[in-house]
Amino acid sequence: MEQRYFSDPVDLKKIRVTDEFWHREQELVRREVIPYQWEALNDRVPGAAPSYCMHNFRAAGRLMRQKREKGKDFVPPEYTFRGFEALPEDPAAPDPDKFYGFVFQDTDFSKWIEAVGYSLTQHPDPELERTADEAIEIVCAAQLENGYLDTYYIINGMDRAFTNLKDHHELYCLGHLVEGAVAYFQATGKDKLLKAACRFADYVAECFGPEEEKCKGYPGHEIAEMALVRLYQVTGEEKYLNLSKFFLDQRGTQPYYFEEEEKKRAALEGRTWKPDASPNKYAYYQAHEPVRRQSEAVGHAVRAGYLYSGMADVARLAGDEELYGACERLWKSIVEEKLYITGGVGATHMGEAFSYPYDLPNDTAYSETCAAIALAFFARRMLQIKPEGQYGDVMELALYNTVLAGMALDGKSFFYVNPLEVTPEACEKDSRKFHVKPVRQKWFGCACCPPNIARIVSSVASYAYTENEDTLWTHLYMGSVLTKEFTPRRNTAGKPVVCGGKKMDLRLETRMPWEGSAVMRIHAEEPVTGTLAFRLPGWSGNARIMAVCGGEKREFTWSRKRGLEQEGRREFAQDAGRGFAQDAGQGLAQDDGRGFAQDGKLRPEEAADFEKALADPEIRDGYLYFTGEWQDGDYIALDFDMEVRIWAANPKVREDVGKVALTRGPVTFCMEEADNGKDLHLNRLDLERIGENCQGIVAEKMEIQGHPMICLKVPGRRQATPASPLYHEFTPAREEEVLLTFLPYYAWANRGEGEMSVWVRYSL
Amino acid sequence: MEQRYFSDPVDLKKIRVTDEFWHREQELVRREVIPYQWEALNDRVPGAAPSYCMHNFRAAGRLMRQKREKGKDFVPPEYTFRGFEALPEDPAAPDPDKFYGFVFQDTDFSKWIEAVGYSLTQHPDPELERTADEAIEIVCAAQLENGYLDTYYIINGMDRAFTNLKDHHELYCLGHLVEGAVAYFQATGKDKLLKAACRFADYVAECFGPEEEKCKGYPGHEIAEMALVRLYQVTGEEKYLNLSKFFLDQRGTQPYYFEEEEKKRAALEGRTWKPDASPNKYAYYQAHEPVRRQSEAVGHAVRAGYLYSGMADVARLAGDEELYGACERLWKSIVEEKLYITGGVGATHMGEAFSYPYDLPNDTAYSETCAAIALAFFARRMLQIKPEGQYGDVMELALYNTVLAGMALDGKSFFYVNPLEVTPEACEKDSRKFHVKPVRQKWFGCACCPPNIARIVSSVASYAYTENEDTLWTHLYMGSVLTKEFTPRRNTAGKPVVCGGKKMDLRLETRMPWEGSAVMRIHAEEPVTGTLAFRLPGWSGNARIMAVCGGEKREFTWSRKRGLEQEGRREFAQDAGRGFAQDAGQGLAQDDGRGFAQDGKLRPEEAADFEKALADPEIRDGYLYFTGEWQDGDYIALDFDMEVRIWAANPKVREDVGKVALTRGPVTFCMEEADNGKDLHLNRLDLERIGENCQGIVAEKMEIQGHPMICLKVPGRRQATPASPLYHEFTPAREEEVLLTFLPYYAWANRGEGEMSVWVRYSL
Repeated sequence: MEQRYFSDPVDLKKIRVTDEFWHREQELVRREVIPYQWEALNDRVPGAAPSYCMHNFRAAGRLMRQKREKGKDFVPPEYTFRGFEALPEDPAAPDPDKFYGFVFQDTDFSKWIEAVGYSLTQHPDPELERTADEAIEIVCAAQLENGYLDTYYIINGMDRAFTNLKDHHELYCLGHLVEGAVAYFQATGKDKLLKAACRFADYVAECFGPEEEKCKGYPGHEIAEMALVRLYQVTGEEKYLNLSKFFLDQRGTQPYYFEEEEKKRAALEGRTWKPDASPNKYAYYQAHEPVRRQSEAVGHAVRAGYLYSGMADVARLAGDEELYGACERLWKSIVEEKLYITGGVGATHMGEAFSYPYDLPNDTAYSETCAAIALAFFARRMLQIKPEGQYGDVMELALYNTVLAGMALDGKSFFYVNPLEVTPEACEKDSRKFHVKPVRQKWFGCACCPPNIARIVSSVASYAYTENEDTLWTHLYMGSVLTKEFTPRRNTAGKPVVCGGKKMDLRLETRMPWEGSAVMRIHAEEPVTGTLAFRLPGWSGNARIMAVCGGEKREFTWSRKRGLEQEGRREFAQDAGRGFAQDAGQGLAQDDGRGFAQDGKLRPEEAADFEKALADPEIRDGYLYFTGEWQDGDYIALDFDMEVRIWAANPKVREDVGKVALTRGPVTFCMEEADNGKDLHLNRLDLERIGENCQGIVAEKMEIQGHPMICLKVPGRRQATPASPLYHEFTPAREEEVLLTFLPYYAWANRGEGEMSVWVRYSL
Repeated sequence: MEQRYFSDPVDLKKIRVTDEFWHREQELVRREVIPYQWEALNDRVPGAAPSYCMHNFRAAGRLMRQKREKGKDFVPPEYTFRGFEALPEDPAAPDPDKFYGFVFQDTDFSKWIEAVGYSLTQHPDPELERTADEAIEIVCAAQLENGYLDTYYIINGMDRAFTNLKDHHELYCLGHLVEGAVAYFQATGKDKLLKAACRFADYVAECFGPEEEKCKGYPGHEIAEMALVRLYQVTGEEKYLNLSKFFLDQRGTQPYYFEEEEKKRAALEGRTWKPDASPNKYAYYQAHEPVRRQSEAVGHAVRAGYLYSGMADVARLAGDEELYGACERLWKSIVEEKLYITGGVGATHMGEAFSYPYDLPNDTAYSETCAAIALAFFARRMLQIKPEGQYGDVMELALYNTVLAGMALDGKSFFYVNPLEVTPEACEKDSRKFHVKPVRQKWFGCACCPPNIARIVSSVASYAYTENEDTLWTHLYMGSVLTKEFTPRRNTAGKPVVCGGKKMDLRLETRMPWEGSAVMRIHAEEPVTGTLAFRLPGWSGNARIMAVCGGEKREFTWSRKRGLEQEGRREFAQDAGRGFAQDAGQGLAQDDGRGFAQDGKLRPEEAADFEKALADPEIRDGYLYFTGEWQDGDYIALDFDMEVRIWAANPKVREDVGKVALTRGPVTFCMEEADNGKDLHLNRLDLERIGENCQGIVAEKMEIQGHPMICLKVPGRRQATPASPLYHEFTPAREEEVLLTFLPYYAWANRGEGEMSVWVRYSL
């Protein structure tokens, strides 16, 4: 495994997202989601199902206090709830000492504190931090002396702890606690929760492991694998990495742990145990075969994404080629056979799972928001091992489309399921589609998606950039200010590197996803040697590039077909975006007060010539590498063509045959009833009027709830609907010419209930 | 309500099906299904789930004998099973005294005896009759002294009888028992079972009714409604008609009986009862509102079809206009919004039910065989009230397509679900489609479809003809020999009728569904006055007609657009079927030994001229009425154009937009993998090469398992499948010209597992 590419996300404290698009999303999370979430996990949201999360921590905390106070006189209460979800008999008067909610309800807190941590790096907020510190006190008070921390078992009887790893989410609770604790520690430097997480992890490491006396189980719902790696990275304690590796390597071995566990539990409860005779019976848990042998992405899509992320983490840190090979195969399985064009995964609601290859139904899709988030996790970890354009492309697709579609433009409601085609009548009347909602919901009893959006949006900058000692990779183009310290110990680009100064401030300016240009500006007190790498986005086929390094300016053109070519002295185009960008940008530009224009365009004086040498840039695996000695005022300007593209699916995707979908840049588009009327299925794209290179499609500004975006006006044909019997002899349908409106998929369902469709038929 | 059209099916004992097509189906039922069924209900089929039907009757019979023998010393056993399905703890050693199987398992016998009865009318079989008589002994021995006869409650405790009408099928058992008993009585004249059925019905009539002290319940699963009408017609006992009417009128009234019943049962069992808050909560049972107010076909499609049949029966016999109005609305709801082009109904497997209007998915269709049978029941009953072409068309569509598709060509395996599109991989891997099977199954635990096919196929002649005093209606063209007695008491056709002789023998010759011609030949010892009516099939737009009445010959042409026109003396076409029929008929024709050609064509000497007057034929509601004084040797020859037709669905049917389906005569066609290769979705009909009037489509003979049929060779285009990523930029797909093969839908899945599709995309 070639370690020279290994990278880590940039520390969020060293970066500030100034991007209009993403800053807005982060502000929604900060202003709407995080406060709402805190109310929700304290059961104070009228009309919403109570979380009981803080209730449970408080109940467990009281129990711990009594235990300490009474010493050996302490008699534990006789709560022995064994189910998956506990509800109070009288919802108006829950017993303060009992556990309520789902087995994994503790994670409501963990996800919240993680989002809080990230948010504090971008927007310090002493009051929020105080609330968080108080919550941490409550949570830590519930921890057992041995470190165990899962209120379900603390309250209902520790005799059953670790007896149902398959379905009772204890190790999932550990994983989320670790993720939250690390994030909060990294943001604030406060280690109370981190220490608690370590103690729980230490206890788990005492109970699980290869040693004979230890339990051979592993998480039913993955996340501990990736979380323990993070804990290892922040503490340096190898036992956490080893525990993660143990969980990975135990998974799917025979005899199946989950089966052994069930046998024991059945014996304990005096039940007869019968083996599940179905083949691949643990595929739902990705525990049907050892992870190193897995090649097809199967089962619950969120669990799968978390598992693969943990595998990639361990592969990287342990230099484990075999595990990396499995990651590559599983990645391939997803992107070649199981990925929606919206970046969503998980084609079936049965088990919230991956379906079989090429089975990608649009109307019954599950495509859970969390699964797209998990896919972004996995993608970034693959990038951390080896930067390749495909990982960045898929990560970007998931983030700009399915992940953001999960949250309303006002940040107040959420999708769990992200279908690619919706008929509200079907959602209401057809029980096969009851899982598909035509409008976002306020909150969910199983509240995984809103907090997951909160944590990924707040930490999105850690997906935009990764770094190692000598290189900074830009994976996503996102307006931001960051600091990069170069500490080259080895030669990244195969070029001689002279270490000068070590630190530079960088500023990326762009109006993506609406315009294709970006400028990375360099500020350094003294010249700094290092490599800046930029993703060549899969959605673009051509770019003009200008690089100024050490005051030397060079211009290039790039095309996917011909590669990189150095230009003569022709003027670097000021009007990138083919005349559209200027218009579309109106109102988007903001100045953050530091005097930078954010439009990603060079100012005229900056386009002046320089006459110094720059090392030849290189393209490797879809990334463009610039290595040189950078000085203050240098910059790299990239202007990617951002054209509307019309996509067809592989003909094996039955649901999309005879249909196409539209994208522009990283954004996938869809039709909505609000713009195009009912019965969207009667519309076809008129490819003749659209013409070659999509000249007939016009990108226009559009605004929904004050949120500016680009929509597409697309020539189409609409089938007339004369009164006719259910079946009638075929005659070519009468169609009329129409101009269809497509809006970004992430923005759908923000104008009330209506039909939506991503894929659309066409006429040649 | 205009009673002059009221008719009844022709007595099966007065008719013999000589038709090659249907005789073959009847022989399959007689030779394969009925004997297999008998083995199945005696639990003697290796590898099949036991029925326990006769086991239960024997157990109940022993109980009754003990009761009689011990008198007041009799202590009933303490079996108190309350569930829906009982299985023995050790399948190898079921307790001989316990009830096993589903709550409705008794009906396995009732359905079998009904099919046996019908079959005996067509093919006397003393051994089968003896077996049946022995079975009847066993069944009758289980009956309580008060007439009650449902082994589930007899064995498990009569204290719970009639406490769960909603789900425990007692009145469904009554209904099937009555249907079976009437059929067996009508076939054999033996009344032992009929008397038992009457006693059960009498007991139910004592328990249920409008009188204050009686129960106000009604069947959870309908069929008693239509069965009781049959019992009334065979016995003349009005109380059965009244009981049926009571059940109908109680249904859906408030407070909901099913809810009251649940409350009581909850109280009895010490459970807390909570009302079901869902709207239309009893729509599954068609009990959400009074039947007279219902307008949309909803809920479990088989139950619905049985209910509507009962409603039509009562409407006719009680002259109930309001009820008839409801029948007309419900019929309209089905055929205008909820009918598959295969004659199937029930678009969703959730509740085996009708979906909302125009929701007719092809791949997740339920379209249960029994639901198509129930639709045929309903259609014939609507015909009995008022003959209209639409009822005959739909009945024919259901019978020739979905009903027959339910049984393999060898009669040995069955479909419960009849999808219009199948991908075997999806059936295996996609749990949303687990209900869809790509190959027929041997038998089912809930064995409703195979016995239902057995009873409708054995009695199919009663769907082909109905009669009243002065008219015989031919609804389906089916080779047959029958006797018609005319006893005109009123003027059917509005013409003066002179009663002469009363009886004629008729013989219908045809090669439908493969050829469009039919001849009805009359044999009468003396001239007979009466009306012969023939359906003008919806699948034909034109016909040539020759009628010889009283020796007078007249020729007509009929077209749907212009109506009936009398021809000059031009020769009646001998080559109807455009040259194809003769070829296709090779091997189809059989002579039954009585000297009749069965090809539906006139022999040359019969085409000679006659010169006598015949009353002008009339067309009313899609039927052609001939009234006159018929004499021996007269005939009516009809030669309907039977062209391939290409159908489109109403654009509101989302699943069929951009697609077409093919029919020829009453037969709907489909593509199979066996003829067209995998990935059927890549094929399109090439309408340009097909041309106007489908000249490009060739009908050819085809044979599967010795069963001759017509297939269609259709010009098409098939999309190439070059290796391509999951999504790629659109370019018009490369297609190659192919000749697609379509076979009759009913014959699919007789050549192993493979894809199938009824609807197909097209290119203009």
